[in-house]
Amino acid sequence: MFNHKKELQFEAKPDAPNPLYAKYIQELIGGQYGEMSVAMQYLFQGWSCRGEEKYKDMIMDVATEELGHVEMLATMVARLLEDAPIIQQEEVMKQDPTVKAIISGMNPQHAIVAGLGPRPADSVGNPWSGAYIIASGNLLADFRANLNAESQGRLQVARIYEMIEDKGVRELLSVLLARDSYHQNLWMTAVKELEEKEGGILVPTTFPRDKERFDIAYDFYNLSKGEESQDGSWAKGEALDGEGEFKWVKDPKPEASAPNLKPVTPKMYGTPDLPDQIGFKKE
Amino acid sequence: MFNHKKELQFEAKPDAPNPLYAKYIQELIGGQYGEMSVAMQYLFQGWSCRGEEKYKDMIMDVATEELGHVEMLATMVARLLEDAPIIQQEEVMKQDPTVKAIISGMNPQHAIVAGLGPRPADSVGNPWSGAYIIASGNLLADFRANLNAESQGRLQVARIYEMIEDKGVRELLSVLLARDSYHQNLWMTAVKELEEKEGGILVPTTFPRDKERFDIAYDFYNLSKGEESQDGSWAKGEALDGEGEFKWVKDPKPEASAPNLKPVTPKMYGTPDLPDQIGFKKE
Amino acid sequence: MFNHKKELQFEAKPDAPNPLYAKYIQELIGGQYGEMSVAMQYLFQGWSCRGEEKYKDMIMDVATEELGHVEMLATMVARLLEDAPIIQQEEVMKQDPTVKAIISGMNPQHAIVAGLGPRPADSVGNPWSGAYIIASGNLLADFRANLNAESQGRLQVARIYEMIEDKGVRELLSVLLARDSYHQNLWMTAVKELEEKEGGILVPTTFPRDKERFDIAYDFYNLSKGEESQDGSWAKGEALDGEGEFKWVKDPKPEASAPNLKPVTPKMYGTPDLPDQIGFKKE
Amino acid sequence: MFNHKKELQFEAKPDAPNPLYAKYIQELIGGQYGEMSVAMQYLFQGWSCRGEEKYKDMIMDVATEELGHVEMLATMVARLLEDAPIIQQEEVMKQDPTVKAIISGMNPQHAIVAGLGPRPADSVGNPWSGAYIIASGNLLADFRANLNAESQGRLQVARIYEMIEDKGVRELLSVLLARDSYHQNLWMTAVKELEEKEGGILVPTTFPRDKERFDIAYDFYNLSKGEESQDGSWAKGEALDGEGEFKWVKDPKPEASAPNLKPVTPKMYGTPDLPDQIGFKKE
Amino acid sequence: MFNHKKELQFEAKPDAPNPLYAKYIQELIGGQYGEMSVAMQYLFQGWSCRGEEKYKDMIMDVATEELGHVEMLATMVARLLEDAPIIQQEEVMKQDPTVKAIISGMNPQHAIVAGLGPRPADSVGNPWSGAYIIASGNLLADFRANLNAESQGRLQVARIYEMIEDKGVRELLSVLLARDSYHQNLWMTAVKELEEKEGGILVPTTFPRDKERFDIAYDFYNLSKGEESQDGSWAKGEALDGEGEFKWVKDPKPEASAPNLKPVTPKMYGTPDLPDQIGFKKE
Amino acid sequence: MFNHKKELQFEAKPDAPNPLYAKYIQELIGGQYGEMSVAMQYLFQGWSCRGEEKYKDMIMDVATEELGHVEMLATMVARLLEDAPIIQQEEVMKQDPTVKAIISGMNPQHAIVAGLGPRPADSVGNPWSGAYIIASGNLLADFRANLNAESQGRLQVARIYEMIEDKGVRELLSVLLARDSYHQNLWMTAVKELEEKEGGILVPTTFPRDKERFDIAYDFYNLSKGEESQDGSWAKGEALDGEGEFKWVKDPKPEASAPNLKPVTPKMYGTPDLPDQIGFKKE
Repeated sequence: MFNHKKELQFEAKPDAPNPLYAKYIQELIGGQYGEMSVAMQYLFQGWSCRGEEKYKDMIMDVATEELGHVEMLATMVARLLEDAPIIQQEEVMKQDPTVKAIISGMNPQHAIVAGLGPRPADSVGNPWSGAYIIASGNLLADFRANLNAESQGRLQVARIYEMIEDKGVRELLSVLLARDSYHQNLWMTAVKELEEKEGGILVPTTFPRDKERFDIAYDFYNLSKGEESQDGSWAKGEALDGEGEFKWVKDPKPEASAPNLKPVTPKMYGTPDLPDQIGFKKE
Repeated sequence: MFNHKKELQFEAKPDAPNPLYAKYIQELIGGQYGEMSVAMQYLFQGWSCRGEEKYKDMIMDVATEELGHVEMLATMVARLLEDAPIIQQEEVMKQDPTVKAIISGMNPQHAIVAGLGPRPADSVGNPWSGAYIIASGNLLADFRANLNAESQGRLQVARIYEMIEDKGVRELLSVLLARDSYHQNLWMTAVKELEEKEGGILVPTTFPRDKERFDIAYDFYNLSKGEESQDGSWAKGEALDGEGEFKWVKDPKPEASAPNLKPVTPKMYGTPDLPDQIGFKKE
Repeated sequence: MFNHKKELQFEAKPDAPNPLYAKYIQELIGGQYGEMSVAMQYLFQGWSCRGEEKYKDMIMDVATEELGHVEMLATMVARLLEDAPIIQQEEVMKQDPTVKAIISGMNPQHAIVAGLGPRPADSVGNPWSGAYIIASGNLLADFRANLNAESQGRLQVARIYEMIEDKGVRELLSVLLARDSYHQNLWMTAVKELEEKEGGILVPTTFPRDKERFDIAYDFYNLSKGEESQDGSWAKGEALDGEGEFKWVKDPKPEASAPNLKPVTPKMYGTPDLPDQIGFKKE
Repeated sequence: MFNHKKELQFEAKPDAPNPLYAKYIQELIGGQYGEMSVAMQYLFQGWSCRGEEKYKDMIMDVATEELGHVEMLATMVARLLEDAPIIQQEEVMKQDPTVKAIISGMNPQHAIVAGLGPRPADSVGNPWSGAYIIASGNLLADFRANLNAESQGRLQVARIYEMIEDKGVRELLSVLLARDSYHQNLWMTAVKELEEKEGGILVPTTFPRDKERFDIAYDFYNLSKGEESQDGSWAKGEALDGEGEFKWVKDPKPEASAPNLKPVTPKMYGTPDLPDQIGFKKE
Repeated sequence: MFNHKKELQFEAKPDAPNPLYAKYIQELIGGQYGEMSVAMQYLFQGWSCRGEEKYKDMIMDVATEELGHVEMLATMVARLLEDAPIIQQEEVMKQDPTVKAIISGMNPQHAIVAGLGPRPADSVGNPWSGAYIIASGNLLADFRANLNAESQGRLQVARIYEMIEDKGVRELLSVLLARDSYHQNLWMTAVKELEEKEGGILVPTTFPRDKERFDIAYDFYNLSKGEESQDGSWAKGEALDGEGEFKWVKDPKPEASAPNLKPVTPKMYGTPDLPDQIGFKKE
Repeated sequence: MFNHKKELQFEAKPDAPNPLYAKYIQELIGGQYGEMSVAMQYLFQGWSCRGEEKYKDMIMDVATEELGHVEMLATMVARLLEDAPIIQQEEVMKQDPTVKAIISGMNPQHAIVAGLGPRPADSVGNPWSGAYIIASGNLLADFRANLNAESQGRLQVARIYEMIEDKGVRELLSVLLARDSYHQNLWMTAVKELEEKEGGILVPTTFPRDKERFDIAYDFYNLSKGEESQDGSWAKGEALDGEGEFKWVKDPKPEASAPNLKPVTPKMYGTPDLPDQIGFKKE
């Protein structure tokens, strides 16, 4: 159950309207690694958490924070679009070329669909999708997903920070950068804690390793010409999981022969390459 | 540039046809964390790699291996569908109830669209999407994405392993389990190497930290009632990045006031809450 | 800014596990008119609200309630999947035919992807999409959208109520039915209030009607053979907007001639139906 | 069964080509509330109509009209793209800055994919989706959906009217504005008629209200801080449905305790938080 | 501009309800190659046709016919769902195992969302997408697309014909088979006519061939091990276009060296593999 | 099983960076008819090929070549984005108006998400979708799909060739044009070979024609006003399949009456148009 207060946790006020910046910020709202993604990902992880209470509590704390991030960014977009010279297009277009280019490049749905408000979509207009998120029921797996999301997220914020000079926008971005820093620290710490607790690093740690093809579980297959890959730490020495030795396989050979698929019933009307299938036509 | 040989790297032969199993296997082909995803993710990462040659070489080696995984699974699905009792539905339906349930539950597109072949889709039929993958141009970020993908991937294979009793299918799954084990080891090793090289663990490591709100970069916000979250390793002590001390904030307060959006031009035809907008109608 | 408490506003406990019911409930979580849709729709409407404070406050109240609905339904799905006989498929399949059919019909992603937890998707597995929602910046338009959403939503809950006999599930559905009743009342009331305040019922009420083709603004065009449509209240008498008289046009005629598109530059390589385009090839 | 005549019901001729305008118009063709949506929505509603003939006849009349709207807009887009300076990009780019901005902002698929023709997509290029529409089999519900669609639709046309100065385009928009006016009148009238006939306003009107949690069916939950919501007509007095009294609940309390999900079978490889699950690994 | 008559061009009445068959038929309504696809594809081709009038007229004739096909199939689905035992689930489930399996396998949205009516979606529930269709502005290209669509379409109808024993359904399928036969004949004939008229078979026929790399325009590259491909008619002899000789290249060599991408500005925060990028962090 | 070499088969180097061109090229990578589509389409066709070995070998050869095309185009995009003036937006925007327009029109995800690398998406940013491709298990059907894909593909390359003046880009496009020429020749040749072998041209050739409504299999229905369609080669004379005579039907009549759908169980809560359904409410 949720409660809401209208104050923003941090300020979200641009110095000046700019529809092009509004378009960029959309990536942080409704992009693959935007705040809708982390909010929804953490909510579904929390709601299906069957583990220790402290994990569920922590996940729900962070999920709830991220909902507030969507709100701050949505507010920012609404303000970046205020006073945008969207009307009387042609007259405006003849003025300052900067204005012209900005209008031409703005997301038209910001005006037509949202009336100068934010959209549940990314910077090119793809609607946010439930397919972006994961809640697998395995916390170690999901904390790695979360670390990934916060890493990509902070990277995108950093890029937009450089692409945008507005001080008000940058102030909010500097908040998001800090929170993504914390969340990277958080998920890494939680991953470490779980790996230690579960006594393993290979997700899922509980799958019996004698049921996998252990003989090929430490091989690197050199399938792209060039041997530079053997210089990496993944190509020799003991594996991080402590259960095997990396091996660089220069020229991996197939174990199996070329598959030869059987024809299927002629009633599926596949390619009639067999005499009796051709004959089938005549019946 | 690629070359192909028709031999499979590992065998892909079920003991018996089973369209329900074929439906499950689709998750490993075209699901969010299926082999199409890792193959395409690694290919795009390799193609946009601007870093050291050994990384590009390694990424392309693994990408190329994953293409072969899609091939093995596609072959497996094609064989699981051979001899499936898809035809003369009603007659079959009256027979063995197991057959009935299997036909009823099978993916109808396996028959209607693919003629008893594999689909570029997941286990419920969603087509594979480019939105599943990431190639950010930052290898540390992307290697974390890859570790996540291999963790979720191995988890899903392990689950299907338990849901399927066919020995031939399990043989291939045991190969995938081993390779996902290796790839988890691989990406973790590569992440470690990059973190050491870049001298930091917060992606992107090169963003100047004085430009983020450092004062809030180690705070945990207790926003979901319940204080269990303070028991985690993320709530106290030095952060993993070595640059700050975790702090558990019991009752986070908003810094900013409630936003009050300005009305926009009446020509956007938003809600006419202002007298002059109402008047606007009459003009 | 949000806060969360872990107690559910209403109980969400099924009497018994049932993966088929879990599949149905997904429509209420991640379907076109599920709770993710109303929660997100109201949030975006609230965040871009430029109208009177009482509307924004009200919208945010309801949005926040809907987030809790997603939570209750997600919890319900997680519990419907507990103890589901998903493992050792074949052995189970030979038992009770009811079990067989249920397993065959269950959503395989509930097991493979979510480890017996909820999914951000509908009852056939389509991921939730930002394309389901609207926040137009015009409250009258959006309150109609909300009335529509709550009408479709309550209809779907009513259907599932009949399709499911589990008492625990029905208890939660009876809550949702009541809340959808309230929300229909709410949006209808708010629509009425806004129509009165704006002095019109045609969205947007502020668009000057002399800029539309007023002469055709009350015509019903009889374009599907059969004249039963003239018996409706939409075919004669004064229109609800009080500004015109409905008119049933028996045989609507085109005003314009058939369009004749000009050829475009041959450099677009369209169909070369003009001599000089054919000639273009030879240059 | 359909017939087509090539004359357009109304003229669709711009004064001058303008690829940026063509991009805007796409929202009215293939957007969430564009003409493809209403045409398809009404067709599916008509085809599944099990009610009185006059409703089916009326729905099919309007559906058929909307197909003609798609045609007029498609023609308009084709003409807006004629003579567009899409070729010899760089040379053009050096000329008039207005031209430059327009080319830069145009939808590249208009040229590359459609050869200067319309696309079944919205103004940012998202393809039209069957997920936009609803045909529920309940006419009262669906007529509300239709009223919503025509409200959002007219709003979008009004906005584009202001964003575009071309007289020919505006002429067609003034037609669409009038028809959307009529259709709003139409659906409101039909909703009113059905509400009276069914003797209720809560969709579905036939669901027995004693099966819902009637005790909470008139409560407003104040979940977002701020008490302005109690000033609305939804917070006190008799509800529009005439069956209850609105009640503003200042501080809604949870009825249920925090859910505690049971662990699931270890064969799902969730988080191994139980001793026997950890042990499971060793087997 | 369209007109509609309510009579169906051909009968659409099943002998008995069957929700599983209803699910299959959906592929023919809203699948990649269903009737919505051909109707919409032909409409957009007709609306953007800049060629001879007889082509536009013909395309619009066929498009209009296909709209009627969607109608017949939608009617069929509505009837296959009538009297389906969707209610009182558990009781029914205990009865006849065939009924059980059918209910378990049915598309739940047919009941929950559509109230036993058709959906604008395919047989697994993916909504129809504008991304399925093409209208390129080049008739020769598009007629090939149409031939492809009618070929895949007839193939799918033939398969469903075998999977369904209901005589009423088969009667309608036999109509669709015949019309798809005609349409294959039609598009092949039109393709032939255009190829002759344009004097070439390579789309677009007007692109000057001296601007392509003519020296590699007849090579077959043997990139998959195995030399069976040289036995095909595509590997030797004069090409169908009459302008070159096929050549089977046994071991194709790269012309270009391995690409070495330059680092980009450190402000994009890519992988900091260069000393000055690492240094950048310290600034 | 695949192998990779890092050399490109052909050079992929632009003369100068240009983010607008990079946006165009994306259509050839991840568009409906881009190289990801043909690569994946051919791979799935090859993997499910149950026909003669020479077809499978040929398909896999071409599929493997197309993977290399994606690689070349991805490399081209990465280079077109190098040195793009994406940073310090405003300052740049005040400079040369050409630069301004280009930045305004560029795909923001190229910077924000991909760090100046390629995306698995089309020219407006829609992610590539598995829904673009077909592998039906019937080679004649699929070779027609392939001919269509190569026709649309070459058309798009030709258009981009005219829209881009960069010599380096054009060099690569001239390679693609040549290869698409070859592949059109290839699939046409293969289609011809299969038609001859199967002794028919109507896919699927093996479906018994006496099971279709042969009496309507050669009719052209004149459903769009205007009689120009009777001038086409599809309207008279012997059909290409040699089994019937084309017939132009001036005024096609419906065979069936208007469908009258039965009401369904009131428990579906459809429109209560029957007295007993209204009564149902009172129970």
